[in-house]
Amino acid sequence: MSGTTSLPAAEIAKTARQASFTIKSLPGFDRDIALDAIYDALAAYKDDILAANAQDMAAATALVAEGKLSQSLVKRLDLSRPGKYDDMLQGIKDVRALADPVGKTTLATKLDENLTLHRYTTPIGTLLIIFEARPEVIANISSLAIKSGNAAILKGGKESSHSFAAIAEVISSALSSTRIPAGAIQLVQSREAVKDLLDQDVYIDLVIPRGGNDLVRYIKENTKIPVMGHADGLCATYVHQDADLKVAVDVVVDGKTDYPAACNATETLLVHRDVLHSHLPSIVKALQLKGVSVRCDAESLDALQGVDDKVLDAAGKNILQKATEEDYNTEFLDLTIAVKTVGSLQEAVEHINTHSSSHTDSIVTTSTEAGEEFCRMVDSAGVYINASTRFADGYRYGFGTEVGISTNKVHARGPVGLEGLMIYKYVVRGEGHTAAMYGGGGKKFLHEKIDF
Amino acid sequence: MSGTTSLPAAEIAKTARQASFTIKSLPGFDRDIALDAIYDALAAYKDDILAANAQDMAAATALVAEGKLSQSLVKRLDLSRPGKYDDMLQGIKDVRALADPVGKTTLATKLDENLTLHRYTTPIGTLLIIFEARPEVIANISSLAIKSGNAAILKGGKESSHSFAAIAEVISSALSSTRIPAGAIQLVQSREAVKDLLDQDVYIDLVIPRGGNDLVRYIKENTKIPVMGHADGLCATYVHQDADLKVAVDVVVDGKTDYPAACNATETLLVHRDVLHSHLPSIVKALQLKGVSVRCDAESLDALQGVDDKVLDAAGKNILQKATEEDYNTEFLDLTIAVKTVGSLQEAVEHINTHSSSHTDSIVTTSTEAGEEFCRMVDSAGVYINASTRFADGYRYGFGTEVGISTNKVHARGPVGLEGLMIYKYVVRGEGHTAAMYGGGGKKFLHEKIDF
Repeated sequence: MSGTTSLPAAEIAKTARQASFTIKSLPGFDRDIALDAIYDALAAYKDDILAANAQDMAAATALVAEGKLSQSLVKRLDLSRPGKYDDMLQGIKDVRALADPVGKTTLATKLDENLTLHRYTTPIGTLLIIFEARPEVIANISSLAIKSGNAAILKGGKESSHSFAAIAEVISSALSSTRIPAGAIQLVQSREAVKDLLDQDVYIDLVIPRGGNDLVRYIKENTKIPVMGHADGLCATYVHQDADLKVAVDVVVDGKTDYPAACNATETLLVHRDVLHSHLPSIVKALQLKGVSVRCDAESLDALQGVDDKVLDAAGKNILQKATEEDYNTEFLDLTIAVKTVGSLQEAVEHINTHSSSHTDSIVTTSTEAGEEFCRMVDSAGVYINASTRFADGYRYGFGTEVGISTNKVHARGPVGLEGLMIYKYVVRGEGHTAAMYGGGGKKFLHEKIDF
Repeated sequence: MSGTTSLPAAEIAKTARQASFTIKSLPGFDRDIALDAIYDALAAYKDDILAANAQDMAAATALVAEGKLSQSLVKRLDLSRPGKYDDMLQGIKDVRALADPVGKTTLATKLDENLTLHRYTTPIGTLLIIFEARPEVIANISSLAIKSGNAAILKGGKESSHSFAAIAEVISSALSSTRIPAGAIQLVQSREAVKDLLDQDVYIDLVIPRGGNDLVRYIKENTKIPVMGHADGLCATYVHQDADLKVAVDVVVDGKTDYPAACNATETLLVHRDVLHSHLPSIVKALQLKGVSVRCDAESLDALQGVDDKVLDAAGKNILQKATEEDYNTEFLDLTIAVKTVGSLQEAVEHINTHSSSHTDSIVTTSTEAGEEFCRMVDSAGVYINASTRFADGYRYGFGTEVGISTNKVHARGPVGLEGLMIYKYVVRGEGHTAAMYGGGGKKFLHEKIDF
């Protein structure tokens, strides 16, 4: 039995929509049982899945050697990194432990005697998730979709094809013993399918791309279905004039080096002019010790005269370089950071609102006022005070896991967990009430809040 | 001084985005003062605005006579209908009276000692609202945009050009005496502007079309900006086998005839087979008395043998007709209704989930169980029990006024008021916390809920 489907896109989408009506009406109990089944199956078949993942890794590593694939993609592909598989499993347990998000009352109003309005959370319906590497996304997304009562179509990338097929088979088999309809989680591997699936706006309610800029842009340009995700993760950390030096070093170094391939890694370092000499040299030295190439504007480069600019990186390139304007618009996803000098908090905010991708930006400051002003004025999904941009993550936020990180301005921003997969419906209960009663009919609305 | 702008689209959009940073940081106090200023000015210049509206009405009425414009559009254009202007003014007051939606805490978590996560509501940013007739929309939308701290670009249709210019001038002039930046509400009249504005996805966060199907479809197909709205308003009312006859007559007649040109008018009547003879004749007679053409499937037509099928409508057409399959997919927006016989609640639900536009659907029943089952299974923004579909409206729901009615499955569904114009940001406050502390560093997240 294969876990993946090769039906035509319209059939896949129609089947998903049909299944969405069933899964959204199942009690939370049945959805939790399905999560247990997936957890147990993925734990039981760990060796098989890691063996499949090793095949993908071998192929990817060969492509890196040929210069056809980036090292960062290989890192994302690797399920055998210490703790990674267990984190994936724990993510399922964490999602299961969350409160059932379906059917929660979020508004209740007495419109008139015996006429009430309620708003209840409901699943969105049918999700299409398209991803490149990161095979653990299948488990994350399947868990979140099932817990939230949504149907999901998952399309993996070619780099993770063996891992994907193995995990898909385990999940499909596990679900077949539960009340979740087979069409609720469909795993698609054919490369041609993406374009056709993106045309199914009648059946699919939301597309969630998980991958690089090119994938996300391609999707945004080729579908009428709403897209939730982020094309770029261009995060900045700003060191204010009153910053604590140790905090500045810790937050910048962690933001840049904890996991440089991640979208929440710091790409730009903004430094207040007043601390160029007191703070920047220590920060840059700490970065260089981690192998980071630092690209500076003229002013910050000048302040770094004392720092050894002869240090070379692995590729033999000078690790202290001059920045170009383009560097401030670049998501390096690697051990490179762009440094820019600013004269004020206001200037830092303007730089961020112009250049950052509205993902996550941080300020290092000892002033509560400056911190709050930064948070109020920076127009990003995450605004941090004295904390690494790397905290932008569904697990760290306490959402169990995440379906992705959104830089959209509507529906959901930042790390998206269960709540981002919900919408609501309004229910009006009357006794034959008509609109005419309140127009010419002379009746007045009460609009009294009902406690819930 | 003219209230409308004729800058190039990119300039308009850029100006709006810049202004959005200012308006989103103004206190609620300043935003309320601006609403008072608009209210006072629109009240003071009522005669001028109605004179301008009369010019639009004269032009539109001439086009209707030539068959170039629909009567329903003319109805929507008319600001002089009794109560309409006062309703528009009252809408501003109602919006002002609502709680400030900006900066509300919606989540607070202690991640660890001295490391907190908060989620605060924030304005979306920059809205583009495109509408056809209904000049009062300018006042509604301007109020909602200002109250919610968003910048808005409003583009009116050619049918309402005089009304639009007059209202735009009054609003611009009123705002110039307040702290709202001029760019926060921009009123655009050039016809060429739409296509160019739809290209400004870098600066504009959300498009809200207010108009017919063609406008909405054109917009959805020509922009990468998220679109909130409804292309169709195909609402159904289902008369269950245990329905109270009077309630059925009242709810169906009101749904169809209270304002047939509205998107929340009932277009399809589903009747349970068991009450075809007991209920349908009275419902159809009541509809015919209001001049409604009734299009029936074979079974319901058969049950209506006793009803006089010689009644003719204004155009001399037989008022009782045979339905075609297409009638069940048609938004008549006029005094026409399609009737279909179903054998069960389940069949009614399936018909609605297949044919309706997920806008608003109602059931008439005396059984709480059947009513709740209908609400649970019908996948629409509004699901009603014993109430007219015409209640789907921001004013009736107690939202003051509405920016539109959404049939989207993400962000906002149903009548959209202030809440639909909000998004949120996450704020993390730490003391130099790094992600590495929680990875290899051994620290554990607390994820404790903070009361707010």
